[in-house]
Formats: sequence, structure tokens, C-alpha cells
Amino acid sequence: MQLQDLDTPCVIVDLDRLHANITSLQAYLDQHSIANRPHVKTHKTAEIAHLQIAAGAVGVTCQKLGEAEAMADAGISDIFIAYNLIGEHKLRRLATLMRRADVSVACDNAFTARGLSWAAQQAGRPLRVLVEFDSGMHRCGVQTPMEATALARQIAGLPMLRFGGLMCYPNSEALEAFVRQTRALLAPDGIAVEQVSGGGTACVWQAHTHPELTEHRAGMYVFGDRALVAKGVMSLERCALHVLATVVSTPTPERVILDCGSKTLSSDTLGLEGYGMILEYPEAVIYALSEEHAHVDVSACAQRPQLGERVTVLPNHCCPVVNLCDTLHVVREGALIENWRVIARGATQ
Amino acid sequence: MQLQDLDTPCVIVDLDRLHANITSLQAYLDQHSIANRPHVKTHKTAEIAHLQIAAGAVGVTCQKLGEAEAMADAGISDIFIAYNLIGEHKLRRLATLMRRADVSVACDNAFTARGLSWAAQQAGRPLRVLVEFDSGMHRCGVQTPMEATALARQIAGLPMLRFGGLMCYPNSEALEAFVRQTRALLAPDGIAVEQVSGGGTACVWQAHTHPELTEHRAGMYVFGDRALVAKGVMSLERCALHVLATVVSTPTPERVILDCGSKTLSSDTLGLEGYGMILEYPEAVIYALSEEHAHVDVSACAQRPQLGERVTVLPNHCCPVVNLCDTLHVVREGALIENWRVIARGATQ
Repeated sequence: MQLQDLDTPCVIVDLDRLHANITSLQAYLDQHSIANRPHVKTHKTAEIAHLQIAAGAVGVTCQKLGEAEAMADAGISDIFIAYNLIGEHKLRRLATLMRRADVSVACDNAFTARGLSWAAQQAGRPLRVLVEFDSGMHRCGVQTPMEATALARQIAGLPMLRFGGLMCYPNSEALEAFVRQTRALLAPDGIAVEQVSGGGTACVWQAHTHPELTEHRAGMYVFGDRALVAKGVMSLERCALHVLATVVSTPTPERVILDCGSKTLSSDTLGLEGYGMILEYPEAVIYALSEEHAHVDVSACAQRPQLGERVTVLPNHCCPVVNLCDTLHVVREGALIENWRVIARGATQ
Repeated sequence: MQLQDLDTPCVIVDLDRLHANITSLQAYLDQHSIANRPHVKTHKTAEIAHLQIAAGAVGVTCQKLGEAEAMADAGISDIFIAYNLIGEHKLRRLATLMRRADVSVACDNAFTARGLSWAAQQAGRPLRVLVEFDSGMHRCGVQTPMEATALARQIAGLPMLRFGGLMCYPNSEALEAFVRQTRALLAPDGIAVEQVSGGGTACVWQAHTHPELTEHRAGMYVFGDRALVAKGVMSLERCALHVLATVVSTPTPERVILDCGSKTLSSDTLGLEGYGMILEYPEAVIYALSEEHAHVDVSACAQRPQLGERVTVLPNHCCPVVNLCDTLHVVREGALIENWRVIARGATQ
């Protein structure tokens, strides 16, 4: 089967580039003795998780319990859930999951920790809990080493919980001081900070500059996207995920409409101008999206795309693009070789 | 089953409000003798399409062929596809669909029209084609009555195609003049503009001010959302679709994190500040979204949401929220009474 046999819009993944991205990050982290625990929220597929494990990853990271369940279904055994799991539904599911996979979780408050302890007791297995701290993103996470210390003590004291260390997203300049201070505060209790887990793709190639880091969680490095290219983290030639689209209208000489809208590309701008880059027409600007239309200004293009022509779009942000589709079409040297199901698509719970 | 039995994040639909929205628009369009052809891109469910038909809609509108196939599977017989269908894959699918449903389509160029003629010949059935014109949105559509006339003539002359009239989105002040001029230009050929199909929810209650309009296509009126409330089109009390979410982190006194991120609410702002309204805390501002987190500023709230508390979020834009989930949980007077599958979720092809 060839690319032309695919209907549009659809998401294609270049297998050689995917492999290269997986192996190069693994080699870098190996070189610096940092464990690699890639985030599956980006790809949500069994096949890529297995490629990552085969390359040397110690396990995977999931954002939601539903992703973790999908990964366990796919035979992935070591799963870290980087999210506060709250509520009886999820705690029961966590207990069930713990019986079939080696699960660890993040936590930034005592309320969550008490629930996790309940789940671990239900499962009859100890649960390793990492305390999330705020490294500057101002999302979740305890705010100070004092708070981290207090929470670590609570975790260590709760039935069936093990304090596993600290985690943050993304790595930042604040990381080292936070970890060292927390370590010092916990030392009198005999509680060790065994693991320090950082995260992010934009910062991953500086992971070795954080001596405290024992593990890194990167997601987008497998595919890359326009935002990572704009940040200089990846070259265009390394980007492994694209959207195939068709020109469905050319209402004016300056305007072209593609069949990939926000229900394919997502509305994420990540601070960029426009909603993606058309590889064949780099001067074109996707200046707006409707749900099923990309609005493209082609006035700067020497040659302009024609009605019915197919183009290749590098999306701004690879993660939501994957979450909006059911299948990744895997391509090698222009030939379609496999279809991978996005098994954790929509797993927001 | 009660709401408390649902895990979060999830999408709930208030059945009484949904009914009221469907019947009130139908009554208004009936009163003005405008056919109602609601757009299913908003709800993507069989049950709501059937409610719309039962209330008096003449058929449904779909944006993509995949939505139309899902509606035909659900037993909806009269389907208008408001999109240029291009390429052999889709034309073959269109021919198949035409054998089991009464399909009409939009078109804004001769290239598309020739393909549609091919599909109609494959199906062995005539296909009604409406010419899309640009009423001011500057997306698809012919630009002038001259262009509309030329395309209408081409359609009328192509094997198995019938020129059905004109369509635009949204209704605008340009509508009447465009239609009248096209009608006048086509008169010498004996080609009638039988149908004039307008669209949009924001403009729907002014449909009667467009004497040329014979049909209207509205989508979002079934649910409403924060954007329609902001525009004064719907009251908060009519909004029928919400996201149930849980407070999963309260890292600072001012900041609360919910478990609904852009993979639940979408990143659509529709020009609004923030990403949704928390009904229980109207002073709270959802100032940012991560994929699985809503970042909420609660500094203006007299009372603040607690860890583990459930809240109800009115999203900015209902359409992508539905497309991101598999199930709509239907609620009446606080009780969960049904689950409706989003059968056309992800049907972007």
C-alpha cells in the first residue's frame, strides 16, 4: 500500500525517524546514567511503548489512569502515573491495576496520599509514591522543600505506601536546590530521596546538567512538532509525525482550504503564529482553523497548491493530534507498512 | 445511577434543556416557514439526530462524509454534506452512501462538481448539489454571483447532477443581494434557485429577516456553550452540555487544578478570556489548560473549591468537547438516565 491509498486527513508516522528519535534519546540518557521513562501521553500506542522499552527505557509514564490501564493491557509492566489520583472510582481502578503491573504514582497533597494508601491496602501491595514539586511551571506540586518534607513523612507513615522520591515538570534551575534542601530536611528521619524524576522534551538534552536527576520523562521527542522545531530542539528532518491533507477549495488566488481543521490539528498554537507548517509550501500560512477546514494564505508562495492536491502538514503540537485520531499510519520510505491503533486515545479518566 | 457515580472528567447533557432547545428552534423556524436542517457536527450522536427529526427537522447536515455514513447507519435518511468531496476514496464512499440515503452535497468549484457527477453515475442516482457562496466568512465558497452562475450551469449540465440552489455559512447581510443576483443571472437558462440554505447558531434567531432563506442549518443550539452565552444568543440556564471535573490539586491558596485539560475542553477560546466557566465558582478563571489539567485562579472566590470536590464546567465551545469524548451522559433532574455514544467522533474523513 502506498501513501496515495490513504484517505485524508490522516496522521502518518515515519518509522525510520521514529526509531532514530527513540534511540538517540536513549543513548544520551544512558551516557549520563539517567533512567529513561518516556511519557506515553504523546503517542498512546502499544507499539511505540514497546519500541521505547526495547531501546532501554525502564518503564513508561502516563498522565491518566486510563492510559496506564491501556499500557498494562499492552503488556507494559512498569508504569508511573504522574497525576494525583483522587476519588473512589479511580482508587478502585488503581488497586486493580496494581495487581497486574508495577505501578508508581505522583502526589502533591496528603488527601491524595491517604487515598493512595487505601488503594494499596485494597491491592494488598505496597505502592511507591513520588512527591511532585513545582519547578516553576506553577501547575501542580508542593511549593517548598518544607512542604515536600512534610508530605514525604506522611507518605512514609501511611499503610502500604513507600516514599519513592521527588518529581517535577519541567526540569529547571530550581531543581537542584529544591532536591538538596528536601534531602537535608528528611535526613534526620532516615527517609532517603531515592529517585528524582524530571520531565519535558524541550529541556531533555540538558538533563545531564542536573546532577540530582536520576530519571527523565520525555514525551514529544518521539515525534517532534512545529513547536519543538521553533524552539530549536529538533530539526525539521527529525520530525516523524505529519498530517496528510487535501486541498478542498481554492476560493481566491490567495486562499486555499485544506480538509484538516481543529478536529485534526487541534487549536493549540503553543505561542506560534499559525496552526502548522505545510512542508511542500513552507511560505504558506495556516492562519485559521475551522473544525474541518484549515484556512491557508498562499499569497507568498511562488507556486500555489491546486484543488485536489495532497500536502503534508507538520502540526504545532503532536500530542493532541494523536489524541484526535484512532490510527497512526506507519510509513517507511514512502510506503505504508503498518497501522497502529491509538489505544489510549481519549483516556482522560 | 446518580451523577456521583460517574468518574471525571466526563461530559453530561441535561435532557430537559436539550429538548427545550430542539423544540424552541423548530417552532421558530416553523413559524417562519424555514426548513430546519440541523448540523450534526456538534452532537455526532444518533439519539439527538432522531430527536431533531422527530421535532420536525427535514434532515440533517454533516460536515464530513464520515459523519454522514454514521448518520445513515443510525437510520437518518435525508443528509446534506456541506463540504467539497474530493478524491476517489471519498467519491466511491459517496456513491455507496447514495444507495442507502437521500444525499445532497455542497460544492464551490467545477473540479469537485465533475467528481460528484462521477460518483452519482457510479451510484446510478441523481445527486442534488448546492453551490456554496462566501457570505463574508472568507472560508470556502464562490466569491461572486457570476461565479455562482457559471458553476450552477456546469452542475446543471453534468451527468446525474441536479443544481439544488445556494448555500452559505453564516447568514449575513450579503445573503439577499447575492441570491437575487444569481437568480437573475440564471433565469435566462431556465435554471431555478430552489433552495437557499443558511447556517449558524449565533445568527439563527434572525433567520426570518432573510426573505431569501428557505432552509437553515444550526448546530450548537442543541447544547449552547460559553461563547454563545457571551454573545447573548443563549442564557446560562439553557446550556445543556457541561463537563464534570474534579479538583485534583490546590498547590497554592490562589490556584486550583482540575482534571479536565485541553484533551477534554479543547484549546478553543473563540475569542474569550479563559477556557470555560465553573458554574459553582463563577468568579474563578480557568486561565490556562495543559492536556490533562485546567489551571484555575480562585483568588476572586469568596469560598474556594476543595481537593476532591466536583465542579461543573461550561466549555467555551461545545463541538470539540463532544468530538473528544466517546460518550455523552444524559441527565434528568440530577439523575443519570442514559449514555449516548458519540458515533461520529473523530469522523474527519
